[in-house]
Amino acid sequence: MLDKFFNPKSVAIVGASRQKGKVGYEILKSMIEAGFSGKIFPVNPQSDTIENIKCYPDLTSIGQSPDLVVIVVPAKAVANVMQECANLGVKAVVIITAGFKEVGEEGRKLEQQVIQIARQAGIRVIGPNCLGLIVPKNKLNASFGGTLPVVGSIGYLSQSGALLAAILDMANANGIGFSKLVSIGNKADVDELDIIDALAEDDDTKVIAGYLENITDGNTFVGHAERISQKKPILLMKAGVSAAGAKAASSHTGSLAGSETAYEAVFERAGVIRCLSLNAQFDFAQGFAYQPLPKGNSVAVITNAGGAGIMAADAIEKLHLTFAKLSDETKHRLAEKLPPAANFHNPIDVLGDALADRYEFALDIALDDPNVNSVLILLTPQAMTDAEGTAKVLVDVVKRKPGKPVFASFLGAEKVVRANAILREGKIPNYDSPEAAALTIKVMTEYVRWRARPKRIVRLFPVNRHKVETIVERHLRQGVGQIGEAESKEILEAYGFVTPKDAIANTAEQAVNIAEQIGYPVVLKIWSPDIIHKSDVGGVRVGLETSQEVMDAFDLMMFRIPKKVPNAKILGVLVQTMCSRGKELILGMHRDPHFGPLMMFGMGGTMVEVMQDVSFYLAPLTAEEAKQMLVSTRTYKLLIGARGQQGVDIDVVAEALQRLSQLVTEFPEIQEMDINPFMVGPQGTTPVAVDARIRVEKLK
Amino acid sequence: MLDKFFNPKSVAIVGASRQKGKVGYEILKSMIEAGFSGKIFPVNPQSDTIENIKCYPDLTSIGQSPDLVVIVVPAKAVANVMQECANLGVKAVVIITAGFKEVGEEGRKLEQQVIQIARQAGIRVIGPNCLGLIVPKNKLNASFGGTLPVVGSIGYLSQSGALLAAILDMANANGIGFSKLVSIGNKADVDELDIIDALAEDDDTKVIAGYLENITDGNTFVGHAERISQKKPILLMKAGVSAAGAKAASSHTGSLAGSETAYEAVFERAGVIRCLSLNAQFDFAQGFAYQPLPKGNSVAVITNAGGAGIMAADAIEKLHLTFAKLSDETKHRLAEKLPPAANFHNPIDVLGDALADRYEFALDIALDDPNVNSVLILLTPQAMTDAEGTAKVLVDVVKRKPGKPVFASFLGAEKVVRANAILREGKIPNYDSPEAAALTIKVMTEYVRWRARPKRIVRLFPVNRHKVETIVERHLRQGVGQIGEAESKEILEAYGFVTPKDAIANTAEQAVNIAEQIGYPVVLKIWSPDIIHKSDVGGVRVGLETSQEVMDAFDLMMFRIPKKVPNAKILGVLVQTMCSRGKELILGMHRDPHFGPLMMFGMGGTMVEVMQDVSFYLAPLTAEEAKQMLVSTRTYKLLIGARGQQGVDIDVVAEALQRLSQLVTEFPEIQEMDINPFMVGPQGTTPVAVDARIRVEKLK
Repeated sequence: MLDKFFNPKSVAIVGASRQKGKVGYEILKSMIEAGFSGKIFPVNPQSDTIENIKCYPDLTSIGQSPDLVVIVVPAKAVANVMQECANLGVKAVVIITAGFKEVGEEGRKLEQQVIQIARQAGIRVIGPNCLGLIVPKNKLNASFGGTLPVVGSIGYLSQSGALLAAILDMANANGIGFSKLVSIGNKADVDELDIIDALAEDDDTKVIAGYLENITDGNTFVGHAERISQKKPILLMKAGVSAAGAKAASSHTGSLAGSETAYEAVFERAGVIRCLSLNAQFDFAQGFAYQPLPKGNSVAVITNAGGAGIMAADAIEKLHLTFAKLSDETKHRLAEKLPPAANFHNPIDVLGDALADRYEFALDIALDDPNVNSVLILLTPQAMTDAEGTAKVLVDVVKRKPGKPVFASFLGAEKVVRANAILREGKIPNYDSPEAAALTIKVMTEYVRWRARPKRIVRLFPVNRHKVETIVERHLRQGVGQIGEAESKEILEAYGFVTPKDAIANTAEQAVNIAEQIGYPVVLKIWSPDIIHKSDVGGVRVGLETSQEVMDAFDLMMFRIPKKVPNAKILGVLVQTMCSRGKELILGMHRDPHFGPLMMFGMGGTMVEVMQDVSFYLAPLTAEEAKQMLVSTRTYKLLIGARGQQGVDIDVVAEALQRLSQLVTEFPEIQEMDINPFMVGPQGTTPVAVDARIRVEKLK
Repeated sequence: MLDKFFNPKSVAIVGASRQKGKVGYEILKSMIEAGFSGKIFPVNPQSDTIENIKCYPDLTSIGQSPDLVVIVVPAKAVANVMQECANLGVKAVVIITAGFKEVGEEGRKLEQQVIQIARQAGIRVIGPNCLGLIVPKNKLNASFGGTLPVVGSIGYLSQSGALLAAILDMANANGIGFSKLVSIGNKADVDELDIIDALAEDDDTKVIAGYLENITDGNTFVGHAERISQKKPILLMKAGVSAAGAKAASSHTGSLAGSETAYEAVFERAGVIRCLSLNAQFDFAQGFAYQPLPKGNSVAVITNAGGAGIMAADAIEKLHLTFAKLSDETKHRLAEKLPPAANFHNPIDVLGDALADRYEFALDIALDDPNVNSVLILLTPQAMTDAEGTAKVLVDVVKRKPGKPVFASFLGAEKVVRANAILREGKIPNYDSPEAAALTIKVMTEYVRWRARPKRIVRLFPVNRHKVETIVERHLRQGVGQIGEAESKEILEAYGFVTPKDAIANTAEQAVNIAEQIGYPVVLKIWSPDIIHKSDVGGVRVGLETSQEVMDAFDLMMFRIPKKVPNAKILGVLVQTMCSRGKELILGMHRDPHFGPLMMFGMGGTMVEVMQDVSFYLAPLTAEEAKQMLVSTRTYKLLIGARGQQGVDIDVVAEALQRLSQLVTEFPEIQEMDINPFMVGPQGTTPVAVDARIRVEKLK
């Protein structure tokens, strides 16, 4: 799709310059030094040749249409060049020039103008305000980012050109290779998704990585990323978390759902691996690029230093990976080959005086153990240590026994620098700490778990959609955003929720009548604006099962309470379905402006914000996802019955989340809502949506 | 105290060898290459000279008592050498040799024997099983760890020799300097605390850092470390978290308090800065060693790349540092000096084409702003960037304007390598990511906060200590570890806690009598082993205020409940003080085997383990610390009255924690205890210890 960008046979540089330090010179020099085998056409009316290459006054004079045009002329001149590209039938343009949208209104108009010409002529544009693009395999360096990196399998895109320059420099120093590097700049036409799609189709790219500050089209991104992650890992560093900021929200869910929450939910759903720093990103990228995926989460550690082994063990425990339990056969074989003072359990300690051979035996044997899914090799440079020799034998063993991923952390600097180069060439990723290595193993394991998730099937429940339409439309017509409790409950009932039935009684006979209608057992609650703590004054009676009990309770309240609280205005007694003794949960939704409905589940009640025991996921939810939302809260332990208490029916709660998900998916007018508390009793009882708030908004 | 180790005029190496690769050779070579100016005496009966230095057959033949003796002979020969040291009046010995306690029982005996000789002769011993010691300033490298590092102000101790070798290698590659480096090995005599004490007194040491796997004497450690941290920061990497393991505990507190919790509490109390990796440790150490402490937590960022600025802003927000709000004057001055497209707000963006001058202006101006406590400077190597020139001017500005700490993160590798060296020489710490720099600023800010904490004053409450003695002693005499609920409450009452009064009534008249005695209002609860959910069967009546209400309630229960639950055996009705409507908290203590009583506070009830909203701190508690324990839970928001609810009296809860702290400090026999729930009502009410468990053990 972006083939003209990545694989051009001819490249024109409009604005090429003779003057060192100028971008127009740096790009031409980068192209030449990279050894590009196609044709290079510098374009500049003021020069005949630059760096001994014939220079053209304009694109038309070249006499052919270049596959790729790189533009470095000042912002105001770009539109004219684009028009020339359109006339010549050029299909791929990179605009390096800055001074567009990023500088304000005038620049925004210039950018619009340029892109309009491009769209009409079917030209795809990368940039403006970018660093360019690099394809090491094709010796194409149409950038001013630095030296051509080595060929590798990481495809990288960056929304920040300046960072890409630093990344290139770091990668070159560490011999990290790339398939493609693209600086996407202002994303006026080609955006992050276009590049990710292209890298997904690209056979040379094994890992997609990128630095982003925002995502242009949230919904489309989720769909594409989810499909692509199934094939290739996507590692993104998303900066700009502080953008969350303050936000007016009328629901618990809204107040807890920042933009960060949305990104996390989106990345989890789409299998995208979030990187919290560039260092972590390259740690992960090397793991994915060099090694096979682990089949499980058990790790064997081989070390020549007890301390390093403990550090790895700590990291493995903290990350909830498993410390592999070595088989008896493995221990037996290790004992045969290693000195008696060595440790044959995990971590396998080959001792401080270990030469390469002990590492070789240990890795060879560990890889054979069916209980081991991946191996982490640690080395500190001690007096006897042969770091280079060890690196060589490790590379050999890994080549001989592929299938399980092997990671290394050779600690130190000068003393391991050559060993590290050998490991890198042998495709064993090497980390500057045991912690960084363990985190990479964790991330790869999580990716495997994500890929193995069941197929997403969203269940559709039979509901009364028409009823909800009526309520929502009336509110929108009347300009009332907040739907009241009574109608909120009607909406929920239409989607299969049970809400408590109740009515106010003024006499004991009325109370009995209501109870007969809504069904026993019932609760009686004194109804007075002046009494806040009803049970303190004997104003709550639960579990009333007969008409006699209802009558007695009613009369006792009416008799006693006025004596206790003489000034309270008593409006009657509320007769209400008795909710089974249950746990107070919250189900909610907040519609993220970029990614749509974000479902929330957690511990309910008035303390939702205080306890913050909630989980988020993008709607529509599958049964699996709904269940996962439950599992990822602390409240879950309480639901399944901690400390001998009876548990609740998890599937029933998960179904409620799915029904809510269906409601908010079918009604995009619903902006945010809470069901709080959602009261859930023991197995066999029906949960009740005790209270609910829904806010709707006209669709734009 | 350890002066003979750090500043010897003569060093003997017993077991020095001519054979390359042997430890006895490597140490001698290290001594010579370091350029040690004192006398070196190789001791080996098989050689006349080694490396052109006269070699002695034994220590006695030297004819003088060396200040420091380094022993590298085989383990079995060490005792004889030690005896010789004793005879010669040697006072400082480093035993490099391995094969002692770490290899099992036989080695342990050898070690005991050696140490016994040393103790009798007043010899201090570092090791055995260690890498040696290094003092760069004195050109003393009595180790086989590698080249002598440069002189600096970091004092380092390591329980792992192998890690120290890696650390040395990394430090040498990065030009990080040390005052002293000590490998403490098996800690047979000199332990971590001896070294920390010595480094505290050492004028050349500004920062104490170390790698530890355990702490020998927990109680003493806390006291010393707390005193020392007030003068110099102590940065420790404590490995071995997985040791927590499974542990039988009869209290909530015990089951939540792992050994990790104890270390965290100890480090917090003593101001020790915990490092989660060696990289983090050196990041922090450089900050403390090179720069002054920040006076507050507001940070200004200067960058030539928007993306890097965003990464720093994200990190600053996540770490709860403050993004400095620049004064109008600062913005005005920046606008005068920088191009109009630059950003004069924080982060100050000097733009991608910035040369050194813009960085110079920006730093100079930022340091003048009273709203700025520290400055973080970011640079990515772009086409125009002059990394070296920038580093130079930054160093100049920092020299000219000391007082506020300045940190740098020059991203990239080859293109910034020389700039990084300039920064290092100019004592500006440089970090490989904005995140690492921000974390260092955070850690330094927290250290400043710790140092400024109020003086620790532990309040002593008047209590009935004798009563508790009686109960505890009887239990210990009878071999009963678990103190029952009734006596646990008596103990608490003796320390000023209020517990609910109650008694079982069998008739309505008895119920009224009990109520009159304990005082209205009361609660009635049906008392039957067969009824679990009492309120479901009408078995709970709260807020009874008159004898009439008590009688009615009693009779109704006795009349109705047998009809509802015919088979339940009813033992009477419990009449109990009505606890004010309150919040259920937990107060507890678990005695850590190393560090003593660890207090716990948190949300109570049966779900303590599920919610895990608890905080720990070492007893005895000051009022400040008790309050801090409350503040550091989520429950705190609930206590101070979230969402319009009435708050509780925080001081009353803090006092209860202090009283409990006094109890467990005065009774070391108390191994663990819970007060759960500790019921706390609104301001003005007295909290009630509703239930309690105490376990005691004979002191060893």
